[in-house]
Amino acid sequence: MWLAELSERSGVPIPTIKYYRREGLLPPGETAATTRAHYDEGHLDRLRLIRALVGVAGMPIARVREVLAVVDDDAVPVAAAMGSAHVQLSPEPAREPSEASRARVAALLRARRWRARVDGRHARALAAALDAMDHAGAGMAEETLAAYAEAVTDVARADLASTTDLSRERAVERAVTGTLLGEPVLLALRRLAQEGLARRPARG
Amino acid sequence: MWLAELSERSGVPIPTIKYYRREGLLPPGETAATTRAHYDEGHLDRLRLIRALVGVAGMPIARVREVLAVVDDDAVPVAAAMGSAHVQLSPEPAREPSEASRARVAALLRARRWRARVDGRHARALAAALDAMDHAGAGMAEETLAAYAEAVTDVARADLASTTDLSRERAVERAVTGTLLGEPVLLALRRLAQEGLARRPARG
Repeated sequence: MWLAELSERSGVPIPTIKYYRREGLLPPGETAATTRAHYDEGHLDRLRLIRALVGVAGMPIARVREVLAVVDDDAVPVAAAMGSAHVQLSPEPAREPSEASRARVAALLRARRWRARVDGRHARALAAALDAMDHAGAGMAEETLAAYAEAVTDVARADLASTTDLSRERAVERAVTGTLLGEPVLLALRRLAQEGLARRPARG
Repeated sequence: MWLAELSERSGVPIPTIKYYRREGLLPPGETAATTRAHYDEGHLDRLRLIRALVGVAGMPIARVREVLAVVDDDAVPVAAAMGSAHVQLSPEPAREPSEASRARVAALLRARRWRARVDGRHARALAAALDAMDHAGAGMAEETLAAYAEAVTDVARADLASTTDLSRERAVERAVTGTLLGEPVLLALRRLAQEGLARRPARG
């Protein structure tokens, strides 16, 4: 396809595509004439991935370049490539999480046998979120946290199931967009469930 | 307690307390002298509730006044008073949700027997979140949505269990702070579960 079609199908404006090309994020097309190049489905997948990293996840170009380097390295298993983008999604907490909350998260990881890094971004974000509840005088009870952890196990399983049988590029894109765009769904569902269950005459 | 202690224990600065009093959100204290008034635990609970509505939920004063009127009306059951604050937490979607997504949400409410309003704010927020996934070419599969709905049922049960045995003021405060401050916890847990389960050699 020509540049115009690539732009239309990807939803990325032509000047932005040219910028990604200059930055080396998008490989050049096959030169068909001195001023025209031909692009294929691989370019389209790559462009969709860049759009997800930049537009949905808000990553700076330098970080996008790092993620793409991992995607392009066939020696890296696809799950690890997905992880390299996924780990970037949690920002560093504004303040250092408390020792107590970090210990709670470490205990949770052991209990659930999740092979996540205890000093990783997601674990630190969780500890910071627990701290915020404590500071508001609304600390989360241990059994509530356990119920949440049990619930998200099923959510994460469903998420991971939807990323199988995809190309490397599409799998990484899905890890980013599925995680981020699924968040408003999960939160709205929780509020809806709270509303729906609170209106029942008897809880059960 | 005097004003200074009320300020210290609630974490609300004295000028802000005076502002809430002028706006009629906080009842006057018992006048002990021409320039001093005495406050009790009821004032402290009320102040914490106002802080949750204004500071955590970001509600404008006019809306806080409406919520407090419901809290003060003893003819309204406590669950309904909690609902009156809770329903305000979801903003109106920026664009009208699609017919297809609204139908999906309606079917979900019927299937789960959640007594939530199909044209309510939470239901519309969910439909808008599903639309956003569709627009990104990452539409949520029906079985994924069902897995999410099943998971949040347990989350919402745990949330509701933590609001029993509280005064009206504290129950409404908890409905607001527990919902909002619990959201970063839930999202960080999901990312952590995704990380932890993706790193397992075999999924199970």
